[in-house]
Amino acid sequence: MVGTGPGSKEHITPAACKALESSDVIVGYKTYLDLIPDLLSGKEVVSSAMMQEVDRCRRAVELAEQGKQVSLVCGGDPGIYAMAGLVFEIVIEKKSSIRVNIVPGLAALNSCAARLGAPLMHDFAAISLSDLLTPWELIEKRLHAAASADFVIVIYNPKSKKRTKQLLRAREIILKYQKPDTPVGIVTAATRDNEKVEVTTLDRLPEAEVNMQSTVIVGNSTSFAWQNYLITPRGYHHKYSLGE
Amino acid sequence: MVGTGPGSKEHITPAACKALESSDVIVGYKTYLDLIPDLLSGKEVVSSAMMQEVDRCRRAVELAEQGKQVSLVCGGDPGIYAMAGLVFEIVIEKKSSIRVNIVPGLAALNSCAARLGAPLMHDFAAISLSDLLTPWELIEKRLHAAASADFVIVIYNPKSKKRTKQLLRAREIILKYQKPDTPVGIVTAATRDNEKVEVTTLDRLPEAEVNMQSTVIVGNSTSFAWQNYLITPRGYHHKYSLGE
Repeated sequence: MVGTGPGSKEHITPAACKALESSDVIVGYKTYLDLIPDLLSGKEVVSSAMMQEVDRCRRAVELAEQGKQVSLVCGGDPGIYAMAGLVFEIVIEKKSSIRVNIVPGLAALNSCAARLGAPLMHDFAAISLSDLLTPWELIEKRLHAAASADFVIVIYNPKSKKRTKQLLRAREIILKYQKPDTPVGIVTAATRDNEKVEVTTLDRLPEAEVNMQSTVIVGNSTSFAWQNYLITPRGYHHKYSLGE
Repeated sequence: MVGTGPGSKEHITPAACKALESSDVIVGYKTYLDLIPDLLSGKEVVSSAMMQEVDRCRRAVELAEQGKQVSLVCGGDPGIYAMAGLVFEIVIEKKSSIRVNIVPGLAALNSCAARLGAPLMHDFAAISLSDLLTPWELIEKRLHAAASADFVIVIYNPKSKKRTKQLLRAREIILKYQKPDTPVGIVTAATRDNEKVEVTTLDRLPEAEVNMQSTVIVGNSTSFAWQNYLITPRGYHHKYSLGE
């Protein structure tokens, strides 16, 4: 399982390139494969559309069972809200004896944090607003828990064509614990040509542009906005004075 | 600010190498710089010991103010529990006009998750047990919040020479909400020669080897151990049947 990061070649590790290079077959979601044409040359390529994730993982396992060296390409990092778990569940269910290696890549977490400056200097909670596989009541419970304990909150899957109200509801919940001027960073399509970085507030979040390619980071009570950055200090008092 | 990942060259991105290559001066913690000798050749190098972080960041800012292109090397990712925030705070305090770019790298989060298979397939909370800059009461509050809302919990700074009881206390708190057989993954020195990966349970955690180079990942109520992996399913019911 190969994490190819946010999309541009300069953020793909040598380890990931080596894994692809040493493979017989490369399996992946068409949109991610289209970003790395050079790394596919000479390989058997199996590409498919987004919602065929289970099929794609199953196919990759089947090919590996035939003795082939297979790379299953994941955008970002296979290990963060991605397909690694699905592959293991299939391997376990099939009692397969193939070996699974995870090659980590830069997740949305890493790329978006870098674009926002320093939002994740302290404890943070990653919460997905996708209620496809998780009861919405549990997602709300997690939002309450994270906001009440003053975590920085990284919101994955904030919006999709079908899901547009969840982000507003998440904001309502967080506002029970955090002030309206709490900074919120939104990074869309990190490192790609259409990248957009915006820093706004919880109050003004409904006006911001958020889509399927966005990651939303809500600051904690100590976070502040500076220029187009979102900075979260590392602690709650300065142990080392910054002044001379 | 350049993230060099977990330590081995194969996990350093081309973007990070380019940033170092284009710099006049490279500043960093001696132990991380020793891992990348090739990337330092021909550069002015300023290295220092661990606890001189503020000085190191201040020095990097000063050199940049002299017009030099400076790379401040961070192990892992500058944006996750690292030095990015400190640099911004210094730049803001000095009213400096230097430009700060963050080059993301693989954080302990990415590398450790990869070694454990698939622990972070669902919502997770990252909590640091270091009470140097944060009141211990708040850390406990966060542990309660994360465990009660069934987050996977990534524990940073689980132990140090001076701090040995915090991990045991964290375990006590989590045990109020999770079963004793909840799987716990411990990755020490990920990707380095002395790497160690262990999967145990909350119950048996006190027996495990944990040190300053370790990251501890506590599963949620659906996580399970398989071989030497820690798998967290993506949701709370299977939307797509895995069977044929």
